[in-house]
Amino acid sequence: MSTHRRFVLAERPVMRAPRPSDFRIEEGPLPEPKAGEVLMRTVFLSLDPYMRGRISAVKSYAKSVEPGETMVGEAVGEVVASQAEGFRPGDLVRGHIGWQTHGILPAAQARRIVPAGFPLSYYLGVLGMPGRTAYFALLDIGQPKPGETVLVSAASGAVGQLVGQIAKIKGARAVGIAGGPDKIAYCREIGFDAAFDYKGKDDEALVKAVAETCPDGVDVYFDNVGGIIHDAAMANLNLRGRVIICGTISGYNRLEQPDIGRRHLRVMLVKRARMQGFLVGDYAARDAEFEADMPAWLKDGRIRYREDVVEGFERTPEAFAGLLEGRNFGKLVVRVGADPA
Amino acid sequence: MSTHRRFVLAERPVMRAPRPSDFRIEEGPLPEPKAGEVLMRTVFLSLDPYMRGRISAVKSYAKSVEPGETMVGEAVGEVVASQAEGFRPGDLVRGHIGWQTHGILPAAQARRIVPAGFPLSYYLGVLGMPGRTAYFALLDIGQPKPGETVLVSAASGAVGQLVGQIAKIKGARAVGIAGGPDKIAYCREIGFDAAFDYKGKDDEALVKAVAETCPDGVDVYFDNVGGIIHDAAMANLNLRGRVIICGTISGYNRLEQPDIGRRHLRVMLVKRARMQGFLVGDYAARDAEFEADMPAWLKDGRIRYREDVVEGFERTPEAFAGLLEGRNFGKLVVRVGADPA
Repeated sequence: MSTHRRFVLAERPVMRAPRPSDFRIEEGPLPEPKAGEVLMRTVFLSLDPYMRGRISAVKSYAKSVEPGETMVGEAVGEVVASQAEGFRPGDLVRGHIGWQTHGILPAAQARRIVPAGFPLSYYLGVLGMPGRTAYFALLDIGQPKPGETVLVSAASGAVGQLVGQIAKIKGARAVGIAGGPDKIAYCREIGFDAAFDYKGKDDEALVKAVAETCPDGVDVYFDNVGGIIHDAAMANLNLRGRVIICGTISGYNRLEQPDIGRRHLRVMLVKRARMQGFLVGDYAARDAEFEADMPAWLKDGRIRYREDVVEGFERTPEAFAGLLEGRNFGKLVVRVGADPA
Repeated sequence: MSTHRRFVLAERPVMRAPRPSDFRIEEGPLPEPKAGEVLMRTVFLSLDPYMRGRISAVKSYAKSVEPGETMVGEAVGEVVASQAEGFRPGDLVRGHIGWQTHGILPAAQARRIVPAGFPLSYYLGVLGMPGRTAYFALLDIGQPKPGETVLVSAASGAVGQLVGQIAKIKGARAVGIAGGPDKIAYCREIGFDAAFDYKGKDDEALVKAVAETCPDGVDVYFDNVGGIIHDAAMANLNLRGRVIICGTISGYNRLEQPDIGRRHLRVMLVKRARMQGFLVGDYAARDAEFEADMPAWLKDGRIRYREDVVEGFERTPEAFAGLLEGRNFGKLVVRVGADPA
């Protein structure tokens, strides 16, 4: 494994779903770290919905990937060469090296993983960005109180499955929305009080399904999807309800066009609701809170966690396309290399 | 003046602007207070946009007025007969007696006005509900910081004119949106840093006008109107912007239909914005904060205040119809009777 492979953006998908052919593999010799840098070998690569925004030219919170550039993303792996003080070959790290089999990281951007008995891939999920997203967005913006109802969309996904379980830990009722009977069964298995399948449901049926699964209304809606599922949640929102805008995946293939649909300004007013956008990077300074809770919850079984592991670096583009169609079941990661010895 | 007159709802306007003929005047003998009640003679009656919602059958935060029932609203006046301990004829009070020349108030619902040198009508505006709305919504939800930009729609209205001036007191930059050159001139006169006329502007022109008057973007948008002015504000929202949903007057004549338009979920996420609905009744427990600030600001000239006084009870329905078309200039009140001696 001495060649370096990476995926670059070949073509920007505009107003359509991404296809595997939108990415192109490039090969070359292994890069060499300069002073202050490490070379990391990828073990797992994370695939996440936010990446769809990065290959769009629409202005967002981060720079777009240009055709010809390496596709962005976070990975976990081991240091194989180091020119940085404090890092040695064999050290476990995570970092934003993109879709690559190996990547150079400045020491300041290499986040060390201290082995604690968890699979390495967990640091891309429940112990990584999606875990922090579920934790801080639900607790800081959603602020669920015991007995309240927390509704979450994409409920079996990387973030959603954790949102439901954290809601339960905090004494709230958790209700999930997901696509297909297996995902619904999984939500129930990990402790959601109710869950329903959005597939095949029109606007009215969605409103009814939320009403049936949330008989006391929705106090916190954790929105990963936008679209008509958002509308169904808003139609059932309680007085002083909180709406967390964490993702809008239903519209990710048409970011170039305005999102036209029902507006809920009147609901916001009548219900004195609060809606807030969330980005996990804003919570870096509060990381100790997450570190104090999540590994312990995971260890004692209060949090269960499901991953969808795709084998083989070359399948990354195909797995990414599937993610945007909801074909994954649980947090999607790609196994790129063997676990460290 | 010994007959009692009141307006009842004659016909519910559905999917159209209200017309004077939607209300019918009814006359009768003066009502008499029972034990624990006072009879109040109306001096000024308040007309406010929220009243449009009350004559719609659409479910809201308060019960709808039914045809044949007295139209709701707040008034100031004097007690002319009392069967309640602590109230005597001549006492000044405000209360929700509706569109009537005289009204019965249980003592618990009669709010005493202690004369402090202000016109009685002010207790329906700057020292009443609209004043508290501007104060609590801007300070508690908007939380403007020195140097930030506060944008407000319906900026010469009862609430808007105060929002701009409170923003200035707090060290923010105030920008107003209003309809017509006179209202724009008034905004500048009372201290807004900039203002523009929304009339005749389409979606794109509105976005551009906000960008031009808010060159550093919008930190707080105080929304009284909804619609495409809301869109223009959202298009210029800054990172961690706050959006106060206080009114949606642009849609008040079609509450029966879904409000279809641009959704801003992506803006909310990318900007980590916060949007919150406001209703003044939620702040009753914090009234001392308002009382400590607003009368003093008004006295020392830091707050200026413009009213639009319509003379004559019988013109109430016509004035109300005009309010929904933006024909008033400043806080709209109806003079129903003479000031107390």
